[in-house]
Amino acid sequence: MLETKFVANGKSYRLPAKPIVVICIDGCADEYLDVAIVHERMPNTARLIRNGHRFKSRGALPSFTNVNNSCIATGCPPSATGISGNYFLDPETGEEVMMNSASYLRCETIFAAAANVGRKVAIVTAKEKLRDILSHGMNGIAFSSEKARDAKMETHGISNVEEFVGEPTPEIYSGDASVYVLKAGAALIEQGKSDFAYLTLTDFMQHKYAPEDNEALDFYADLDTQIGRLLDCNAIIGITADHGMNAKNDSDGRPNVVYLESLLVEQFGPSNKVICPITDPYVVHHGALGSLVMVHVADKDQIETIAQWIMSLDGIAEVHNREMAALKLELPADRIGDLVVMSTRDAAIGRTPSDHDLSLLTGGLRSHGGRYEEMVPMLISHPLSDSYFRRSQGDPRNFDVFDFVCNGVQL
Amino acid sequence: MLETKFVANGKSYRLPAKPIVVICIDGCADEYLDVAIVHERMPNTARLIRNGHRFKSRGALPSFTNVNNSCIATGCPPSATGISGNYFLDPETGEEVMMNSASYLRCETIFAAAANVGRKVAIVTAKEKLRDILSHGMNGIAFSSEKARDAKMETHGISNVEEFVGEPTPEIYSGDASVYVLKAGAALIEQGKSDFAYLTLTDFMQHKYAPEDNEALDFYADLDTQIGRLLDCNAIIGITADHGMNAKNDSDGRPNVVYLESLLVEQFGPSNKVICPITDPYVVHHGALGSLVMVHVADKDQIETIAQWIMSLDGIAEVHNREMAALKLELPADRIGDLVVMSTRDAAIGRTPSDHDLSLLTGGLRSHGGRYEEMVPMLISHPLSDSYFRRSQGDPRNFDVFDFVCNGVQL
Repeated sequence: MLETKFVANGKSYRLPAKPIVVICIDGCADEYLDVAIVHERMPNTARLIRNGHRFKSRGALPSFTNVNNSCIATGCPPSATGISGNYFLDPETGEEVMMNSASYLRCETIFAAAANVGRKVAIVTAKEKLRDILSHGMNGIAFSSEKARDAKMETHGISNVEEFVGEPTPEIYSGDASVYVLKAGAALIEQGKSDFAYLTLTDFMQHKYAPEDNEALDFYADLDTQIGRLLDCNAIIGITADHGMNAKNDSDGRPNVVYLESLLVEQFGPSNKVICPITDPYVVHHGALGSLVMVHVADKDQIETIAQWIMSLDGIAEVHNREMAALKLELPADRIGDLVVMSTRDAAIGRTPSDHDLSLLTGGLRSHGGRYEEMVPMLISHPLSDSYFRRSQGDPRNFDVFDFVCNGVQL
Repeated sequence: MLETKFVANGKSYRLPAKPIVVICIDGCADEYLDVAIVHERMPNTARLIRNGHRFKSRGALPSFTNVNNSCIATGCPPSATGISGNYFLDPETGEEVMMNSASYLRCETIFAAAANVGRKVAIVTAKEKLRDILSHGMNGIAFSSEKARDAKMETHGISNVEEFVGEPTPEIYSGDASVYVLKAGAALIEQGKSDFAYLTLTDFMQHKYAPEDNEALDFYADLDTQIGRLLDCNAIIGITADHGMNAKNDSDGRPNVVYLESLLVEQFGPSNKVICPITDPYVVHHGALGSLVMVHVADKDQIETIAQWIMSLDGIAEVHNREMAALKLELPADRIGDLVVMSTRDAAIGRTPSDHDLSLLTGGLRSHGGRYEEMVPMLISHPLSDSYFRRSQGDPRNFDVFDFVCNGVQL
């Protein structure tokens, strides 16, 4: 492994002669680290910060998983990646479809570029939905813990994952689905099968448990053990998140939801459509209820009137028209609604009551997608150079995490 | 000291038979605690959290000192307190004036109400500007560290403060101005001169130093020592902040400022006026540059046009008209502009270049006032009851800190 460089999407990345590991802790609001660290459940992570840095970084909006993982994988905002949600109304077909496929990605990945200069790249995801999009055009290892047992050398760059990790494929609705990703990543680095790894977890635990819940503390302690293994590999480690997480319940603990399509139909008649871009196959997490929705307005002359009316509703914090959303939220104008609507911290936005199965949300709703889940932690295992330290104290972005670990650290 | 109750602004407060202490760490963005705790510089605060709780609370907007201290003192949002900034355009006189005086406060304080049922209330501020507004109608002790030597029994409820605290009056542009407040508070509680104290600091250090700077770490360690003294008094302690703090500089380290009145005059002609409500006597802190300004539009028919135009500017994140600002930001409609404008995380908004003396800002600009400085930590020294724990995990407000310490803790 020699120090070298590569370029992806016009940005240059240095490749130090050490393993590079970036971890995306899905749904890791700062509070999870705050509480786990003060309760001394993350001693390795505390050591990582003391030897390096912890600061806040700003994620991409909508603060959803596919959006931010695509940004992290490319070093670009959604306006460049083209990924504006998990789910969208395709303007070319008029169909509502998942945005899971790499065919939607509009720029190259850091992973493909690093592999092209000879790095042994590995991508381990928890959710299978992310694997295709992240491993696009990349020559290396890519598998999900969700489908670990199905990984094959020809298609995934690795086989016999269960044997290699030493554990069977975990249940996707579990904390283990995430811990497994880090175990696999640590094994790949320890055994020299990878020297450039992206490990991206699932937010099942964060959707289900608040930071002070014992289940969350135990989960973060398990993550910390694996972070310790990676530190022992002398890796340069960057840790960030795709989005935060907030409780969205009323005082009785029931989901606090603005059913926006129902309200729009009542006020302005049918054919105004609400798309919930959080919609994904993992409905137990959030019942497709998040903090940001797209509104497709039937009568384009009514857009500003409807925007004003939505803004006046309880539970709504921001409304932007397509042009302003593209400009201010860095979104691809052709893959959003006529309006982009974000909720307050304690509210979620849904379509109609029949579109969301609240019975799945035992213990209430915790979700994300909007401004109040935009800020996420960033941890770097090594001291930063002066210029990157200044950047870390400004408005660093979570999707610059590879820039920070490759170009920013003092070695 | 017997357990009793009181009511302020329609909310009932229980008064446990223990000292109650609320600390407002001015400008305490979460990062300051994160970094100081992980570097083991705040062992008493870490213990306080382990025995109680740490969570995020949402402050009032604008995220300024007078606004939030008034909210904390009353348990009410700015729409009720009437305090919308440090500085405003008085619609009755047409004059731009400081909003420092208690005559602007539109509701009663928790302090006056607690004193009325026999609690020994003490208010110690760092900045003299806050003393008048907070001690309005209150029978007890109230002084500032800035003017500690001037406190007199007849006017401040205490005299010989320097002797009592054991140290001379500190310089206001210092960390000591804050540490002195906590030393005074600890002495008041230790010696039984107070059993209900509000201790509110100054953000000089946060304006000048980032969380990882040694000066900031030393400052937080000094605060922690005094927090330890208060814990030893067996007090119920709540700690929060009035606002966060972000760097607002370009890549060369120079203040990143949108001079909005200059731009408006250029685009729409004169008589559109920008008011910077962060303006206060402590210009070394921020040069009157913050993240939120009021715009008074000359031609009222142009309000929406100007709103759209401002929103399209770099560095601007939100623009609300008066009605929407009153509704969504909980502001008093008669004490704001026709438009309320907030900046992005890394930008500040000014009036014209000649209104701001950047030479005061050695080391760059760190400031606050907008959405990105709205979220602040809240720490409670004791376990919360189930219902307050649930609230703590929802969307708790910093100005409910007295509610949390009086009504929320399990004893």
